[in-house]
Parts: sequence; structure tokens; C-alpha cells
Amino acid sequence: MSDFQIDDLVIENDSKIVYLIIDGLGGLPMEGRGGTELQIAKTPHLDALAECSICGLLDPISPGITPGSGPSHFALFGYDPLESNIGRGILEAAGIDFPLTSKDIVARINYATVNNEGIITDRRAGRISSEENHRICAKLEKNIDLGSDMEVLVKPVKEHRAILVMRSEKLEEGDIADTDPQREGSAPLPPHALNPQSENTVKYVESFLDQSWKILSDEPKANAVLLRGFARHRVYRSLQERFKLKALAIATYPMYKGIARLLGMKVLDDLITLDDEVEALKENYDQYDFFYLHVKHTDSRGEDGDFDAKVKVIEEVDRVVPRITQLNPDVLVVTGDHSTPAKLKSHSWHTLPVLINSRFARVDEVKKFDEISCAQGGLGRSATIHLMSLSLAHALRLTKFGA
Amino acid sequence: MSDFQIDDLVIENDSKIVYLIIDGLGGLPMEGRGGTELQIAKTPHLDALAECSICGLLDPISPGITPGSGPSHFALFGYDPLESNIGRGILEAAGIDFPLTSKDIVARINYATVNNEGIITDRRAGRISSEENHRICAKLEKNIDLGSDMEVLVKPVKEHRAILVMRSEKLEEGDIADTDPQREGSAPLPPHALNPQSENTVKYVESFLDQSWKILSDEPKANAVLLRGFARHRVYRSLQERFKLKALAIATYPMYKGIARLLGMKVLDDLITLDDEVEALKENYDQYDFFYLHVKHTDSRGEDGDFDAKVKVIEEVDRVVPRITQLNPDVLVVTGDHSTPAKLKSHSWHTLPVLINSRFARVDEVKKFDEISCAQGGLGRSATIHLMSLSLAHALRLTKFGA
Repeated sequence: MSDFQIDDLVIENDSKIVYLIIDGLGGLPMEGRGGTELQIAKTPHLDALAECSICGLLDPISPGITPGSGPSHFALFGYDPLESNIGRGILEAAGIDFPLTSKDIVARINYATVNNEGIITDRRAGRISSEENHRICAKLEKNIDLGSDMEVLVKPVKEHRAILVMRSEKLEEGDIADTDPQREGSAPLPPHALNPQSENTVKYVESFLDQSWKILSDEPKANAVLLRGFARHRVYRSLQERFKLKALAIATYPMYKGIARLLGMKVLDDLITLDDEVEALKENYDQYDFFYLHVKHTDSRGEDGDFDAKVKVIEEVDRVVPRITQLNPDVLVVTGDHSTPAKLKSHSWHTLPVLINSRFARVDEVKKFDEISCAQGGLGRSATIHLMSLSLAHALRLTKFGA
Repeated sequence: MSDFQIDDLVIENDSKIVYLIIDGLGGLPMEGRGGTELQIAKTPHLDALAECSICGLLDPISPGITPGSGPSHFALFGYDPLESNIGRGILEAAGIDFPLTSKDIVARINYATVNNEGIITDRRAGRISSEENHRICAKLEKNIDLGSDMEVLVKPVKEHRAILVMRSEKLEEGDIADTDPQREGSAPLPPHALNPQSENTVKYVESFLDQSWKILSDEPKANAVLLRGFARHRVYRSLQERFKLKALAIATYPMYKGIARLLGMKVLDDLITLDDEVEALKENYDQYDFFYLHVKHTDSRGEDGDFDAKVKVIEEVDRVVPRITQLNPDVLVVTGDHSTPAKLKSHSWHTLPVLINSRFARVDEVKKFDEISCAQGGLGRSATIHLMSLSLAHALRLTKFGA
């Protein structure tokens, strides 16, 4: 069913839905370990939960496709991950809570060091401090001039990362190839339009790059700008508009907060540990209908290729599960956004285990929460895009389709 | 994901992918036999392979749909079987390596015998020899005249089967109903257009049929032409263009070679036995990235309704498996194009067992390669169209989608 058709079926009630999203959850058996990270981890609470839930496997996008965090998260929230795919620039902007408008074309900036022949010698400008970043963004923003009807905003994110926002009625589209060659030893690439509607925008980008080249010429480290992930900002319909859900995001990392903000969730700040996150869930439990609790470190340890550390993070998550089930949510979903097997040190295409706990779930015979056991579950293998409608259904928040 | 979106994610590396396609592989339990053909067959090597692979079931097209060999093969290679569906005429033309152009409208010819009232008495013209066929095609091609701007080509295939190619800038579409009534005791049907863009083409077909009627009037057996499977030839993007795969087809039957040729694979000639095929795989292993090895006789014995003979063919295939695994391909896929249960003596809609062997496969608990065991596999039930993206993923030939 299309998004709009599901939205039309939504009804309100006072049920609570909790998503426990364990980033990069899915894994692969590592030589000599005898199973995947999740199979090896001791997870008595997740296993007990699986035993009284319906389980299955999820394809974040479609079989064989390895997703970035953007599209895999859109799918979790019921947004078509192909249609909703957005530029890295917009994700970063949302992550720092920068108020985007529908007139904005956004790109991610990496400050870099180039030598006197214009060749990139350091793609991260020696990982300049956030303070330096702040100063350089202000310097660029002050001195760049793209004409009176074009506002240019340059905002720091962290270390060498920033965002460029070009705001004008005149800009049509922003489908522009990256200028970041993704390697050192080459010059930055010239920007070029990926479709005719973006050709006018490219002229402004060229002028921005020419000017920034001069403005940064006296910088010892950050003397060049690499741009990637160009996109026009599109305003999404919120979870409130689509699903009548008052939604709260409980996450520690900017990008995930950014995605949540784009979808109209209230986002908590200043959370650092998993303990902070669970505490925040408890404290805010009465005020919202839908809770997105995001655990980052499973993915980070997977990316590091550290099997044992990923096992440990999973075990830490398992320990907080009783504090979540204690709240007795009407629907509790446990899954991830994508797999990040330590064996591959990267996101992967492998399916994710998922459980839906609810008193209206048709509980199956799965007794362990892992990739192999969940293959036997009552949900079978499904695409993540269906998770939101399944969650709403188990919360009795969807009415009948058709007479 | 659409074809184009997957194509955009393809990266090159030096991995090898082998598809072992056992035609008509899936079966049904026959009374008194205690299982399907694949369950009854002794397949120690396939079972051992399943034990260290991820397994599942494939729907060639969608649940309940019995496919022809054309669409089921397009799906195997990652081409949408509904969009890519092509006429039998084009399959036959490709099978005899006839060089089609984008100006061609093609139909399959069956030579038939009609009596003096124009009623078909033998739909196969007494299965005339290929030599006879050759002579009659030349006679038609020489004497037919559809005007100076229309080239007419009539080429023999085998026995009573041939192809008609009408080549002209003037022809728009070729969606025309079969003139073959598919039974004896009736007259051939008049051709008619299935859409307005094909109406002009029908006039030429009518003229071709009128003239051939006269040209063949002195033939004792092949005195009539039945046409079916009309279509305009469309040029496909090759496996090289789409997936950066240098692909080799190892098949013994013309139609399968034809499909492979349409998709730009290099096709080997003069292979007759399964042994020839495996030897060819070995000999050519260094020169290609992707190998399509096709086994025909499982399907033939299924069509014959000969359960035991199909079991035997499966056992023969099992015996050559070690010679394939010895090559240690990065990805080895074993499946079929569709089911052909001896019980039904025809293609069927039943799912197919599939295994993907790769060091990045999330190995499941399936220990036997058959239709029932594979239902418990980690791949679950999927559509064949996803097999190519899964294969590319396991060969690490797909990059991440989205930021």
C-alpha cells in the first residue's frame, strides 16, 4: 500500500508505541566465534521478550541492497526509502537543528588542505577543532557574495565538517555532483549539474567555490572546501500529520536527531549514555505516543570490525530491556536500521531480526532473539517499510480498508 | 528497487559469480514415492553445499504464476520479467543467433499441413526434416514481395519450426494475435492487431500469409504457415552495461543460448553433455566474472512426467557439483528457472529451492537441498528478480544506497 493509503486508515487512541532501534544490529558469524554477534551475546531479556512476541526478518530497502542510515531510518518510520532519499547536507543540517526552508539548497562541507598546486593533501584539514571550524564558517559567510537575492549560510557541524545553505527564490533544483573526489592526491572536482533544472544552481556553486578559494587562501589548514550531498530541501509530512502520533526521539548522535526532526518528532538534547536514554524514556513516557530510542554503538563497533566489543554493546542493551518493558508499552518493537557485521566493518545488505511485542501479536515459536532464530518467526521476511503499519495495527491505530 | 537504481550501485571487482540453473528443478511428491524428485534424489554434494550456504525459496514471477522459460530467465538475470517479456519469435531468432535489429518485427513460424478445405490436419507438417525446412524457407524468402521498402526474412530453426522477420522503418508495433489455433481440425486464424499501433503491421502480415498460401500450394506436407509470438525486437541493456559483469553462458539448448545472447553474454557453441558444460566452465573460468550454467534435462523429464528419470538427472547434476565448488567461486548460486513437477508434466507455479554459497552469506540451519528444507532457510521466500542483487551483494559488487 502507498503511504497515502495507510495514512487514510489511521485512528487515534491512547496507546504507546516504543521503537528500540539498535543501529547496525545484524551481523555475520566470525571465524572461530561460533555465531553472529547477536547469537554469541548473552541476551536473556531480549530472548524472553522474543518468546512472547512475533518475530521475523527485515530487509531495510530490498534484498541485496546495503542502505545508508538515511534511507534505512526513513523506512523504519514508514516513509518510502527510495522516494525519501535525501542528501547528506540536509541530514547534517537537520542534525544541528538548522531551520531549513523550502527555498534552500544544501550541501555538506568538508574543509580540506590543498598544496600550492591545488592538490588535496588532507581531506579533513588536520581535523581542525570545532572552534576553528566556527571561525572559518563565519569568515566565509561574511565575505561570500552571490548577489543581493541570494542568501548564503555556512554553519559549522563538528571538527572539519560544516554545511552550505544557498537560499533564494531563483534556485530551481540542486542535483549536483560532489566536488569531493573522496581521496587525497587529486584536485577537487568541478561541480556539475545532474539534470537541466540544476544548471543555474551550478553557476552559483562555482562562484561560491571561486570566492572561498580566495577567502581561505591565508588559512594554514582549512584552505579549501569540498562539497558533497547536494540537495534541495523538501518538507516532509510529519508523523503527527501522517499517523496522528505525538513522537519523541531519544538519540545521542546528531544525524539521527536530524532525521527525527525532519519528520516532526520532538528531539531531546544532552543525552550521552544509554542510561540517559532509558531515563529520558521513563521521564517523558506520559507526554508522547511514539518513542524512537536509538542505540548507536552497536554500529560503531561493527564498523570498527570489533566483534567482541559489538557483543558487549548488545549485552548492555539487553540489561536495560526490563526498564523498558516495565513501562508496559502497548507495542514494543526491537530491531535495527541495517546490519553492520564486524566481519565486513561496514553496513551490509543482510536482513535484520525484528520482534513485535504486543498483546495482539500472534506469538510464534521463536525463543531466541537472533538472525537465525528469527528466520523461523511468524512475520517471515518482510521489508522495513511495513514496520510502521504493523506497529500501528498492533496498537489498534489502523481502521479497516474497504467495505 | 527499480532496475536503474540497482545499476547505479554497481562497482567492479575481480570476484566470480556462478549460477547453476537446473531447469524445472522444483517438483511435487508423486503418489507412492514419498517426496518430491529433489527429496528422493540422492544429492550428498548439494546437501553439503546447502549446509554451508543461505537457503530459501524463490517465486519466479509472483505467487501462483507459472512462467515460461523467457520471463523466468529474465528474472534470474535481474531483468523485470513483466516488462522484459518477449515474443517466442524473438527467443527463437536469438537462439539461432540471427542478428536482429531494432527495425524488426518477428514471429515464430510452424509449418503445417492443411487439407483442401483449409483445415489444419497436422500442426507440425509431419515434422519435416530440417533440410526440407531449409528449402521451404528459402523458397518463401525468395518469392514473397511486400514492397521495396520492406525486407522479409524467413529462417529455419529446426524440423517444422522457423522464424519470420519483417524489417522496415515503416513498421510501428508488432502486437498481433497468433494465427496458430493451437489445435488440428480448425483453419488458421486471421491475424489481428492487439493495439492501434500494430494495425498497419497486420496488413503486411495478411499479405505475407496470402502470398505464402500460393507459394506453398505445391508442397505435399508444409503447405501452410502458422504464426505466433509476434513482437517488435527491443534491444536490452547487457549484463556488462548494467552490472559490469563479463558474462559467459554455458548451455546446450538454442533458446537458453538465445536469451543469454539478448543480454549480451558470450555464448559457447557445440556443448552437448553436462560434462562438456562443466569442462567449459573450468576452461573459461579465468576469462569471465559471471557464469550461467544451464542444465536442461530436469525440465525435459518433468515434462515427460517421468519422476524417476528426473530424479536420475538431479543425481547426475549432484555428481558434478564438486567440480564446480573446486573452482571456489566467490558466489555460487544453485536454483532453477521454474518448477516442472513430473506429476503435472508441465511448468508450474511452485516455488524453487535456492542456495547462495559465499563467505559473506549468513549461513542458516538448512542441511538438505530440497523444496521443504529450504522453506526454513534464512532467505525466506523471495522473488527471483532479487537474486541478481543478492548475488552482486555477496560478491561485494554493490555499494551503499543513500547517505
